Amino acid sequence: MYRIGIDVMSGDNSPSELIDGCVKSILKQKQAKACVFGDQSQIKQILKKHNYPNDRIDIIHSREVIGMDEYPAKACREKKDSSLMVGTNALSQGKIDAFFSPGNTGATLAGSLYSIGRLKGVKRPAIGVFMPTHTGWMLMLDAGANVDCHHKYIKQFAIMGISYYSHYFKVKNPRLGILNVGEEESKGNDLTKKSYKELQKLPYNFIGNVEPSGIVHGNCDVLVCDGFVGNILLKSFETVAKHLLSTFKSASKEKLSYLIGSLLLKSKFVDLKEKWDAKKIGAAPLMGIAKPVFIGHGNTDAISMEAAIKTITSYLEFNVQQHIQNAINQWS
Amino acid sequence: MYRIGIDVMSGDNSPSELIDGCVKSILKQKQAKACVFGDQSQIKQILKKHNYPNDRIDIIHSREVIGMDEYPAKACREKKDSSLMVGTNALSQGKIDAFFSPGNTGATLAGSLYSIGRLKGVKRPAIGVFMPTHTGWMLMLDAGANVDCHHKYIKQFAIMGISYYSHYFKVKNPRLGILNVGEEESKGNDLTKKSYKELQKLPYNFIGNVEPSGIVHGNCDVLVCDGFVGNILLKSFETVAKHLLSTFKSASKEKLSYLIGSLLLKSKFVDLKEKWDAKKIGAAPLMGIAKPVFIGHGNTDAISMEAAIKTITSYLEFNVQQHIQNAINQWS
Repeated sequence: MYRIGIDVMSGDNSPSELIDGCVKSILKQKQAKACVFGDQSQIKQILKKHNYPNDRIDIIHSREVIGMDEYPAKACREKKDSSLMVGTNALSQGKIDAFFSPGNTGATLAGSLYSIGRLKGVKRPAIGVFMPTHTGWMLMLDAGANVDCHHKYIKQFAIMGISYYSHYFKVKNPRLGILNVGEEESKGNDLTKKSYKELQKLPYNFIGNVEPSGIVHGNCDVLVCDGFVGNILLKSFETVAKHLLSTFKSASKEKLSYLIGSLLLKSKFVDLKEKWDAKKIGAAPLMGIAKPVFIGHGNTDAISMEAAIKTITSYLEFNVQQHIQNAINQWS
Repeated sequence: MYRIGIDVMSGDNSPSELIDGCVKSILKQKQAKACVFGDQSQIKQILKKHNYPNDRIDIIHSREVIGMDEYPAKACREKKDSSLMVGTNALSQGKIDAFFSPGNTGATLAGSLYSIGRLKGVKRPAIGVFMPTHTGWMLMLDAGANVDCHHKYIKQFAIMGISYYSHYFKVKNPRLGILNVGEEESKGNDLTKKSYKELQKLPYNFIGNVEPSGIVHGNCDVLVCDGFVGNILLKSFETVAKHLLSTFKSASKEKLSYLIGSLLLKSKFVDLKEKWDAKKIGAAPLMGIAKPVFIGHGNTDAISMEAAIKTITSYLEFNVQQHIQNAINQWS
């Protein structure tokens, strides 16, 4: 039984939607148990409708919450009794097997580094995010943990990413790419040029530079980049997709023909919205932390919370953490 | 009469579509004359259908063409008789008032620096690109000329961008932003943090950090960033928009209800496609080059060529080049 810790006090839909998602998920994931971190009385109130007590839901009380805009290091230092810090400590002490928070990303990273530390040999942990492509999913890292990068970090992102992707999707030789402004080897900035040389030396299926259009076309399985560019890339994809889909939604109010057109295409819109929201994945690992920590989108709702527990359960089941450590030991 | 030089031999639709666009444009832009650079016999052949000779179209013969994948500096050095090099030389010698190429961006930049040089005091030229927002247009620079940047360059990008935007759109105090991974002042990498401090000192309406969602919402008028991130941003916006719109197009083949829905929404699709293609602008200035040089998308067609000449004519009419020089002298 995997004990998955959830910070239900963070994010836009805390705690109610997150708890609903946890309950729905453990009804389906028989090998998972949810350990929810947060205010006991609030959580119990919400759990009433879900036939609590339940031996697959534990509540671990914490008094404080770290807000989205708080300074990560300061918040972690000062709020020892926050759902985040109590959760990362519980993971460190082996009371749970994984921890998830849809809250302040910087604080989740800082708290994890503080309570748990890094896998042996890892220079910098990275956020690994699945992005939708024309053909399936691509793993991109770093999505924002390291805004100033070194090519040695990028090399490790590749090692960790390939390890995750190949074990998660049971793919033998995933295609590795590096995000760049052009496909030719000569293209890019100082960091990508140096990283390119490092990636060539790894025993992977390195396909070289990938542009944003290559992502959409599904040209690679694992894409590495520095956390600043990765974060801008991820947000650009999300924001344009959201904007275009909402434009069609509002168009239906402009005239009757648009309304009918939108209704006829409704299932297509829903498909695309779900795909581009990445709600089917729900959790992104902080790869390189010594134990499995995951972050979620600030707007995590019951649906994505449910998906997150599924993703985390698979991660534990496939023992991704150990595979990453082995790969780092071997190739870093 | 503004003499606008066009490299009609470059890009995906050369020379035929480019020449068609030139002809259409000068029929409308009475104050513009097109000086087309390229293979005389090919150009004459195409111009036959447009009642050539015409006193508002000049042909300047050149024997060579610089390809999209050629190394910029090498190509400029070796292909002196290319449409690009003959064109930038003509601009340098005052035979034309502006020059446009939809070809190899790096070569256009290298050729311009070689033949024309920079405006006095400018450290690095930047590509200024208009991006569509919910409310209108935003000018983003640098879109790719400088993949490794210094905060002093970013400061100059702001000065040049504000100067262009305010004179082009006749807006008194455009909102200036810097692309970042979060809105709070503390967010960002080393470059954006240093640049933030520089931008605060300028006498502009600096609104701080802008995320990709802020672009779509139209939160700022001029956005500065390094050329690597700017290029990824621009390509991400273009590629996601293109992909989603084409998904709907192909959905119409899946079932009858989708086909009817797509037909009813057709005008909306066309509007969005045009908007996100930025075909209404067509030309992006290499800001900071001593004379007006513009680049176009590789897929420039007759419609965007026509728009490009309109954009360039306005740029000359509003004397943007002089305003940029004045602003650099005053604030750099």
